[in-house]
Order: sequence, then C-alpha cells, then structure tokens
Amino acid sequence: MRLRFKLKTVFILYFTVSLLGLIYALMHLGQHCECSEHDMTKDRTISRLLGKLHSLQGHTKKEPTKPHLPTIYVITPTYARLVQKAELTRLSQTFLHVPQLHWIVVEDSSQRTDLVSHFLEHSGLVFTHLHIPTPQDRKLQEGDPNWLKPRGVEQRNEGLRWLRENIWAGETAEGVVYFADDDNTYSLQLFEEMRWTQRVSVWPVGLVGGMRYEGPVVEQGRVVRFHTGWRPSRPFPLDMAGFATSLRLVLRNPEARFDGNSPMGFVESSFLQGLVTMEELEPKAEMCTKVLVWHTRTEKPKMKREEALQAQGLGSDSKVEV
Amino acid sequence: MRLRFKLKTVFILYFTVSLLGLIYALMHLGQHCECSEHDMTKDRTISRLLGKLHSLQGHTKKEPTKPHLPTIYVITPTYARLVQKAELTRLSQTFLHVPQLHWIVVEDSSQRTDLVSHFLEHSGLVFTHLHIPTPQDRKLQEGDPNWLKPRGVEQRNEGLRWLRENIWAGETAEGVVYFADDDNTYSLQLFEEMRWTQRVSVWPVGLVGGMRYEGPVVEQGRVVRFHTGWRPSRPFPLDMAGFATSLRLVLRNPEARFDGNSPMGFVESSFLQGLVTMEELEPKAEMCTKVLVWHTRTEKPKMKREEALQAQGLGSDSKVEV
Repeated sequence: MRLRFKLKTVFILYFTVSLLGLIYALMHLGQHCECSEHDMTKDRTISRLLGKLHSLQGHTKKEPTKPHLPTIYVITPTYARLVQKAELTRLSQTFLHVPQLHWIVVEDSSQRTDLVSHFLEHSGLVFTHLHIPTPQDRKLQEGDPNWLKPRGVEQRNEGLRWLRENIWAGETAEGVVYFADDDNTYSLQLFEEMRWTQRVSVWPVGLVGGMRYEGPVVEQGRVVRFHTGWRPSRPFPLDMAGFATSLRLVLRNPEARFDGNSPMGFVESSFLQGLVTMEELEPKAEMCTKVLVWHTRTEKPKMKREEALQAQGLGSDSKVEV
Repeated sequence: MRLRFKLKTVFILYFTVSLLGLIYALMHLGQHCECSEHDMTKDRTISRLLGKLHSLQGHTKKEPTKPHLPTIYVITPTYARLVQKAELTRLSQTFLHVPQLHWIVVEDSSQRTDLVSHFLEHSGLVFTHLHIPTPQDRKLQEGDPNWLKPRGVEQRNEGLRWLRENIWAGETAEGVVYFADDDNTYSLQLFEEMRWTQRVSVWPVGLVGGMRYEGPVVEQGRVVRFHTGWRPSRPFPLDMAGFATSLRLVLRNPEARFDGNSPMGFVESSFLQGLVTMEELEPKAEMCTKVLVWHTRTEKPKMKREEALQAQGLGSDSKVEV
C-alpha cells in the first residue's frame, strides 16, 4: 500500500508540474516571441529610408512616389552657346536634390537638339523637353547689351502652354511654377520656401539689377514696397528668379503670359499684373531678409586660340561635345 | 495488482510523452521562432540603405561609412568677393552627390571668415577649413588681366601641407587629390573617373585657354602629346582642373608643391614635374575624348545702382549676407 501511495503522489506531482510547464511553453510559442513588433518597426524604417533615397536620387522618369508634396514645376529657357552644357550640368545637380520637381526645359530652337536631348535623358530628373524659336526681330544681336531685349519670353510662355494643356486643372491641382534661368544659382532651401505657395510668393534675389540684392520690403508680414535700384514704381519690380506662382493660379488664368513687347524691366510685371496684387504677395525667406538665389552670369569664353588653330587645320575635334 | 500495473504504465507513458513535448518546446523557445532570420535580413537591408543615403547626402562631418572606396580630397582655394557664396553653394551641391569626398577649403585670408565658416557647417559635407593669405606682391591688382599672376598657389600648397600633416602615410593610404577651383563646373562622372588614380590621371577640360577644350592626346592607351592652344612644349600643358594625383604620390613626395614664381602657364608643371612623366599619365574620360569638366568663369556683378543708392543712404542692408 505504501508503494502505491508514493507512486501516486509522484505521479500527481509530476503531472501538475509538467502541465504547468506545458501551458507556459505553449503561451510563449503562440506569441512568436516579440519579433512581430521589431518586424513592424524595421518595416517602417525600411519604408522611410527607401522614400528618402528615391527622393534624393530623383529616381527615374516615372512619377515620383510622394504624392502629398506639391510638385515644383521649373521652367527653364535655354539656348545653344559654348557654356550651355556646363550650365545645364550644374543646374541639374541642384535639382537632383529637390524632391517632387518636374523640370520643363524649353530650347530657343526650331527643333530639339541632340545635346539637350541626351543631356536630359541622362540627368536622372523628371523632365519635359520643349522647344520654340525666338522670332528674329526679338533676338539680341552680337554686341547688344544683354538688357536690350527681354530673353526667354517665348520659351517661358511655351512652358506655360504645356502646363495648361497637360496638367489637369481640377481642385486638387497642387504645385508651384518657378521660372529658373540656366545661369542663376539656387540654394536648396529656396525650393522648400516656394513649395507651399498659395498665389504668388516672393523673396530677395542677390547680385541683380546692379545691386547687392533686390527684393520686397516686408512690414507686419506683408509686402509694402520693393528694394530695387531701378524704377521702383514698376507694378512688380522683381527679377524672374524672385517669385513663384501657384499652379492653380496659372491654370485658372489661361491668358496670363509674359509680354515680349513690354518696356525694359516690365516683363515680370506683364505676367504678374493680372494674377495678384502687391498686398496678396506671400513673403518668404524669413520675411524677405535672406538671399537664397543669386543672379549669377557666366562669362562668354574666348575662342581666339581655337580660331587660330582652326585656321591651321589643328582645331579641337568638333565631334567632342563641350 | 492490476491497478498498480495500470497506474505505472500510464505514468510511464505520460512521463515519456511530456518529456518529449518539453524538449520540443524548449528547443523552439531557444530558437526565438524564425524571426531572427527575418531580423538579420532586415538589418542588412537597413544597413545597406543607410550606407547609400549617407553617401548620397554626404552625411555629417563624421568619417564616412564606406572605407573601401578611396577618398577624393578636393582642395579648393577661395577668396571673398560678391559671387563667393553663390559659387560655393552650387559647388557644394555638386559635391553632395559624390561619395567619400573630403572638401578642403582654403581661404585667401589671414583668418577664417564667418561667411565661409557658417557655409561649411551647414553644407552637409565632410570638410576641412583652412586659410592662408596671398602675399601682397603676388595678388592681382584691380584692372590686371586674370592670367597675369597665378592665383591660389599658396592656398593649394596649404591644402597639401594639411594632407601631409594629417593623413597617415602608411601603405593603406588610399585616396586621390584634386584641385577644384570654385568657379569651374564638374560633372559627377568626373569624380568616379579620378577615384582610382594610381599616380596622376588626366582628361580634357572644356572652355579653357581660349579653346573649345584642351587635353591630352592618347594613342594606344598612352598620352603622347597635348592638344592646347598655347605653348604645347610646356612639360604639362594641362589646366589645374585636368588632372588628379594619388594621395600616395603626394605623401611620398613631400617637396612637391606649386611654384608661384613659375612663368605664366607653368604652375601645373611646377607641381607635376617631380611626380610623374608623360608616359606614366593615366588617361581617363574614354581615353581623353569626353569633356567632363568646364573652366567656366563667373561675371563680376556691376554695383552701379548699389553705389548710387548708398550715396543717398538707401543702399542694400549690409546685414543681409549675399
């Protein structure tokens, strides 16, 4: 009897302990440890990093992956000259840093050139390649001072036309239009300042109009006048690089364009006048106290030695693209 | 007797089964399910993405995370003038795309300026900020043609001195030294061409020396002569932007420097002569048939209106940095 009692006790004890152990083990197996939580955190981390990478790489020509960021449509008139490829190269390196940017390049030409076509294809940017020639009587002649005739008017208007024909003008059209000449210098911060423009936003431009900088003067959050060295009474004494227009405003005002017949210095006003009043302007760049864009100009390279060598049949190989 | 027999059997059976079950459960608990494998894959993915991001962003001033890529040490002399900030801005936007780049900026100044200090701190690049003034008799005077005196000599030599004092000259010193003026234009491909330089690599430069481009002429993989518009008999008729030197060569030849007293056009030769022969040059850019860098120059902005306004006390606010 004693032996039976002992065995039964051992059995009951073992049974109880092992049952508890089994329940414990089953509970932990069912939880899959805690790796599902780690998993989600890591998935989110990977998503975030991929998003950043794509925007930094200006990945491919397909539509960018961040639909909630307004698109910056940059319209750049360009024309063939010795420094063109260099200018486009360094400009593209700026734009590659800017997320959700669509570059509209408009050649002053009766057809797309190989140089610009190949360049854009390899730029890594989302782009549209247009072309329209400037009428002969509007072109600057050799020896003309560069301010004599406004440049790029037809090309900017062509950019506007493309936007109006190709971007849907619905309520959700979110974006901003910026006219960026190919020889200026742009900080990256500038693009984030302009991105959320509601109508027309403005900021100072460095090294323009014979001044250290030109720009709006802001008091109590509103533009009250303009700091400029020339004809401050112009409706909008701004440089082309000193403002951006919301896409919605551009699409809703299909007649707004640049007038190539405007008096000197009034081209910007010819576009803005119908769109906005001075009081409605949105001042950026810390209430227009910071310079985030410079009106740099590139020297025309001298070709004296090239011409001398070419006369001897020893010039640079014309098949080498410069 | 029968009961005892049955109990013993049940007990033995239960003991065996539960023991097996316990062993199984313990094995799986020890493995932490399979999430450790997923974990490692995701960790590797995150590592890889972070590495890519860092190299794209030129992230922070800490040592870059890709030790197997040779470092490109870019030495840039710079001096204060109206377009300086614009030039440095667009140049930094180029460099931000280049992995494993260390920018050595040398001011022509007796002290570090605030403009350049703040600029570099916010550039996002790995940098070293040096300064050394050009002696007065070596400075260009107002009205001097820009080719009259070689510019940036002391500053480049100062950059070389810093490298020799701060980079360990051991067998594993892997890197390349490139002298990049702050107004040229550089394609991103150029930096990948130069990165693996063994001694001195060379390539064409666009828009320099009065030519469409200047550069080495390559036959059967070797440089045989130079295409240039001026004094082709110079030891190395190259522009500063047209060559790069391996770090090892620079460190092993501590006496190699630029000679500011060289005749015009011989500054590059004064550095290269002691380092390499023409036959040893490594031709890049598809055997020197592509232009990947341009000797662009920026116009000096006119300040007539600024001066006129300042005379009336209405000039641009000097606290605004341009």
